[in-house]
Amino acid sequence: MAFNKISLLERLKTGPVVGDGSMVVLLEKRGYCTPGIWTPEAVMLYPEAVREILREYIHAGADVITTPCFYSSDARLRRGNKTFTAADINEAACKMAKEVAKEGRDVLVCGGLSPVEAYTDGKGEAAVKEEFEEQLKIFIKHDVDFVLAEFFAHVEEIEMCIDVMKKAGKPIAASMRIGPMGDFNGISVEDCALRMAKAGADVVGTNCMFDINTQLKTLRRMKDALEKAGLNREIMCQPPGYLCPEVENTLYGQPHLPEGPLLFEPRLMTRFEVHEFARAAFEQGIKYIGGCCATEPHHIRAIAQELAPERMKDPPSNDMCPPYGVFLPQSDFLLHRNRNTKEYWRNLQPGSGRPYNSPLLKF
Amino acid sequence: MAFNKISLLERLKTGPVVGDGSMVVLLEKRGYCTPGIWTPEAVMLYPEAVREILREYIHAGADVITTPCFYSSDARLRRGNKTFTAADINEAACKMAKEVAKEGRDVLVCGGLSPVEAYTDGKGEAAVKEEFEEQLKIFIKHDVDFVLAEFFAHVEEIEMCIDVMKKAGKPIAASMRIGPMGDFNGISVEDCALRMAKAGADVVGTNCMFDINTQLKTLRRMKDALEKAGLNREIMCQPPGYLCPEVENTLYGQPHLPEGPLLFEPRLMTRFEVHEFARAAFEQGIKYIGGCCATEPHHIRAIAQELAPERMKDPPSNDMCPPYGVFLPQSDFLLHRNRNTKEYWRNLQPGSGRPYNSPLLKF
Amino acid sequence: MAFNKISLLERLKTGPVVGDGSMVVLLEKRGYCTPGIWTPEAVMLYPEAVREILREYIHAGADVITTPCFYSSDARLRRGNKTFTAADINEAACKMAKEVAKEGRDVLVCGGLSPVEAYTDGKGEAAVKEEFEEQLKIFIKHDVDFVLAEFFAHVEEIEMCIDVMKKAGKPIAASMRIGPMGDFNGISVEDCALRMAKAGADVVGTNCMFDINTQLKTLRRMKDALEKAGLNREIMCQPPGYLCPEVENTLYGQPHLPEGPLLFEPRLMTRFEVHEFARAAFEQGIKYIGGCCATEPHHIRAIAQELAPERMKDPPSNDMCPPYGVFLPQSDFLLHRNRNTKEYWRNLQPGSGRPYNSPLLKF
Amino acid sequence: MAFNKISLLERLKTGPVVGDGSMVVLLEKRGYCTPGIWTPEAVMLYPEAVREILREYIHAGADVITTPCFYSSDARLRRGNKTFTAADINEAACKMAKEVAKEGRDVLVCGGLSPVEAYTDGKGEAAVKEEFEEQLKIFIKHDVDFVLAEFFAHVEEIEMCIDVMKKAGKPIAASMRIGPMGDFNGISVEDCALRMAKAGADVVGTNCMFDINTQLKTLRRMKDALEKAGLNREIMCQPPGYLCPEVENTLYGQPHLPEGPLLFEPRLMTRFEVHEFARAAFEQGIKYIGGCCATEPHHIRAIAQELAPERMKDPPSNDMCPPYGVFLPQSDFLLHRNRNTKEYWRNLQPGSGRPYNSPLLKF
Repeated sequence: MAFNKISLLERLKTGPVVGDGSMVVLLEKRGYCTPGIWTPEAVMLYPEAVREILREYIHAGADVITTPCFYSSDARLRRGNKTFTAADINEAACKMAKEVAKEGRDVLVCGGLSPVEAYTDGKGEAAVKEEFEEQLKIFIKHDVDFVLAEFFAHVEEIEMCIDVMKKAGKPIAASMRIGPMGDFNGISVEDCALRMAKAGADVVGTNCMFDINTQLKTLRRMKDALEKAGLNREIMCQPPGYLCPEVENTLYGQPHLPEGPLLFEPRLMTRFEVHEFARAAFEQGIKYIGGCCATEPHHIRAIAQELAPERMKDPPSNDMCPPYGVFLPQSDFLLHRNRNTKEYWRNLQPGSGRPYNSPLLKF
Repeated sequence: MAFNKISLLERLKTGPVVGDGSMVVLLEKRGYCTPGIWTPEAVMLYPEAVREILREYIHAGADVITTPCFYSSDARLRRGNKTFTAADINEAACKMAKEVAKEGRDVLVCGGLSPVEAYTDGKGEAAVKEEFEEQLKIFIKHDVDFVLAEFFAHVEEIEMCIDVMKKAGKPIAASMRIGPMGDFNGISVEDCALRMAKAGADVVGTNCMFDINTQLKTLRRMKDALEKAGLNREIMCQPPGYLCPEVENTLYGQPHLPEGPLLFEPRLMTRFEVHEFARAAFEQGIKYIGGCCATEPHHIRAIAQELAPERMKDPPSNDMCPPYGVFLPQSDFLLHRNRNTKEYWRNLQPGSGRPYNSPLLKF
Repeated sequence: MAFNKISLLERLKTGPVVGDGSMVVLLEKRGYCTPGIWTPEAVMLYPEAVREILREYIHAGADVITTPCFYSSDARLRRGNKTFTAADINEAACKMAKEVAKEGRDVLVCGGLSPVEAYTDGKGEAAVKEEFEEQLKIFIKHDVDFVLAEFFAHVEEIEMCIDVMKKAGKPIAASMRIGPMGDFNGISVEDCALRMAKAGADVVGTNCMFDINTQLKTLRRMKDALEKAGLNREIMCQPPGYLCPEVENTLYGQPHLPEGPLLFEPRLMTRFEVHEFARAAFEQGIKYIGGCCATEPHHIRAIAQELAPERMKDPPSNDMCPPYGVFLPQSDFLLHRNRNTKEYWRNLQPGSGRPYNSPLLKF
Repeated sequence: MAFNKISLLERLKTGPVVGDGSMVVLLEKRGYCTPGIWTPEAVMLYPEAVREILREYIHAGADVITTPCFYSSDARLRRGNKTFTAADINEAACKMAKEVAKEGRDVLVCGGLSPVEAYTDGKGEAAVKEEFEEQLKIFIKHDVDFVLAEFFAHVEEIEMCIDVMKKAGKPIAASMRIGPMGDFNGISVEDCALRMAKAGADVVGTNCMFDINTQLKTLRRMKDALEKAGLNREIMCQPPGYLCPEVENTLYGQPHLPEGPLLFEPRLMTRFEVHEFARAAFEQGIKYIGGCCATEPHHIRAIAQELAPERMKDPPSNDMCPPYGVFLPQSDFLLHRNRNTKEYWRNLQPGSGRPYNSPLLKF
């Protein structure tokens, strides 16, 4: 009750903050979300399934859970023949996130905003901002701990969103789904970073669409540009859970891959690849590290485990799932028993089991 | 109440039965099971997490859920420093499975038995059978719909198990974790099938350790041997969720792979590979088709979707997740919009995104 | 002059005999042979080019050069619009081989016979044998050191050939282009070996169509069958210079591969893979080891180098090209300088440089 | 006799000039050159072998043969314990090249100069130039058709070489072994191009060390820089015969690859990849197209065949080896018979036959 959580910005000062992972893509695997529409009406229809995912992320060590209302918008819900309003879903999502957060220790709730169709349809700044405000009101009402504008393709739209978000009086994070070519109007990575910062974002970063390696390159450029301009901001990175080096030099990233959005298995990151990513990200000054589409609890756990020394705590799930196979020496399989070291798992280059497939695809 | 479920054997006469998928491996990804020990104390500690998985399988179209008590044995629980008895766990598992099954329509509960240490430790037939009986009693008390002996490496042990299981007066399924080299004492695939059948199994098959392609080959030999001997039995197949062609000619299968048990991502089957498997399995006369380690709800859903014409019903999750991307034409991503045909997805050969790794590994 | 060469059979008693490599496929790369026809009219048209290849094999350490008249037959020459008769070509080939052999030390000349169209066209035993006799006469006239029937797909035809070859009074070698499925009429590998031996072959083996790994498996079965029947014969192996594991279980082998016959580069064996093959072949009792299509002088050199201890001599080319990069420490490239050990090269698993291609192809 | 060859510069005005391919690497495969030393004493020791290679390039359609004296220098010959002087070798090489060129129609002889140790050893401009002059004298004496400075890593050294070469009064070509990072002292690709042109080169380009794709990128930058500076020069490209995308962003290129220099087989370009390269090179304005290390006659033939329409002539070898398997319909192998179209071969993505290897290597 009287307990005051440490704020996002305080936490970022001292060390890494572990974000959560995918919601709608994970719901889809479990049977509760429609690919192509990607709205989270499961919050109303299958609340226990959504609640369980939020819990899994906390259990995995996430410091943050995001209100499960990504892509919740009336226009989109109608398109998918979903019989709920965005307001209903957002209310339920906020309520659920607040409740589940309390089950954990000191877990922040993040109110997330994403691009709106009013912008794409060219309805003008007023209409766009109105839609953001509608959503923001619910976050304010439920007193989320910070707000996040994510998955934006146009820096102009995220500027509008940031401008609206200021009314919440909460820390503001802003994240774009862009790669080396910059935003969808050709505005450079560097200018996107500067404009997000100038618009009022406390935390600046990228999410989705490009894999860990591309995101780290892009964020290095963002950080350099911010520092050069004297606009020091915290940096966040929430990559998707799959590897797709071949889209690095495209405008849209992942959608160019023939496999999206239903067939990412062979490209899914292993937990050990996530360990390596988390370390590299932190070393290049990224403080907020989570996941986007196709990341799952064991990926988030790997981030929390890798950065446990800096965070001075282990993820809750370490009681059953400590890193690097600590309990494998007790396996029935003789061949598994000596696979209990960091060295073993970090040096292993996994196979795909598919010698008739090419590692990279043309598109 | 007064409703009588159609029995397993009745169902198998007319068409395919869809089994469920992985339990402990899935719990591990979600943070609730210890690799190397693999005991299901989560049933006591995190019941909502386990319940959710059972629900997901029913939602995905499974006709069966297995009592979540795989590898539940006192010896093993002690080894892993788990503070529960097998009896406690099995009680809770049976209760939970029965309750969750009622949420679905006409879902069977399968009481599962697996190898015991008394056999491996050479304690003799009486001791082995006693351990099976202890577990069976709880299944009988809770009136499971059928019993399954699975994951056995020695035909001698599964014969003892089948012999005990007869006391339940339920349909008996028996499944071994063997490949082309036969059982761990060198008894041929064919002889294993004949001995399981003669011991009293109504359904005979394989699970775990070898991938779909190897299992289909092995089961063709089992079926041929049974037919030649005039011992017609139903055939079951519950393969793991990953591809590992390079272990086909080994005795143990999967454990030879350097990646087991923590790093299977790049080898995970896609849902479309599962569609193909389910069709091929059914065509070669396999009637009970489910999954073992690393299979997840979307894999089971693919089996139920592929065999929907034969089962004359769709899986419940089809309302949100129909097959082959039906709703992708409504995607925001232009590039995703025409990916809504069976042809597109079945012809796609996915990449791994890892050009610096070899497709197959040496061991 | 008065010098008497040690005969093939004498040599095989004591140690390995190194065969030569590809002729027509190598001529094609150099511009002197027509793919699809594969006749050696280059002997007449570009004699220096052919002579140079024979010299290269001797320089590489071959104990044998084959008369360059493979596939020389009047029917085939006409089909390709070639204006020479087989007799002309065979005469020239024998003359050239005898001359070039004298440039080396103790090099044997092998007169080679291959399948004739009279057999495929069903013209009957007499016609088939007559065609073999025509060719054999020229070999007898030029006093080749031994005769070889190679590339036969039907054991019946090679029996006819062997029967004719007896008239030469020379050692007889017989080699079929078959894999695990046996000859093209379904006669087993074992029966083929026995029938070749019984027909009069002193040396029995396989060549072409299946790669080193498949050939070694096939020859193990041939050797076992011969030994079991008390028909001890020397074994020969002349595999193609490329790897094609995916055709192992086909009837025809290589032609099933989409790449044949013009595009084998990425599958070409490295010299180090040949070292390994030569050792494995010798260890399983194969005494005559050479190469077929797409093997080149550096492959033959690798055989001669690997088996130098057993042969108690190095190949002539060792003065300039000793094995395993002996002179690399003197390279201008610092990075090449420590690549001068057997360990380095034998452990190296080469890349293909083609991440957009699959390692194995479907057909 | 009285016949006057059309000069290199005249030819470049109207259409593509086809260069020759590898000499010393090809000699090594055939057994006549020492890896790590790479000196061409074969000209003295095995003249017929060298002569045959020159002939093969002419037969393949090369408009040019290079005097086979690459890396011929006294210092290097001593290092390799070779008992010839550079002068002896160069004399013989010039004589041979002039003779063989006469066997063809209108074939140019190129006198080639490569980096000297005097430069690397820091002996100063005078010493460096003296060494170049010694070699040039022999080219002048034998009246080669043009001179080429190739394989230079330092633009400063190639400037000295070009300066010396002017004394010959022949067309001057200059080619560096550099990639996107520019020369070995960090001078940019663009500056290298400008300095070569300003020093007096008529033709400017790259050879060796980086694969076709990297070379085409580098040459696009060179051409742009030259045009921007108003220094229009012809562009030449002589890439190695293997693919190595993973070294693109290194300073040295190929030597970073673990496979160099003895194990390039799986990376060797196919003739069809060369067709595609030749077309792309010509389309981006490259007029002189040949090959460097590991290219062979069939690669040069593919260049000449691809550009036959522009050159208005076929390579001489087309009588026996026309492009794209024209004669395959007459093959004995049914499966080969319909592989006689450009479409078939250009669309085929070859396998490597090595599923246990990774496509790209780390270094």
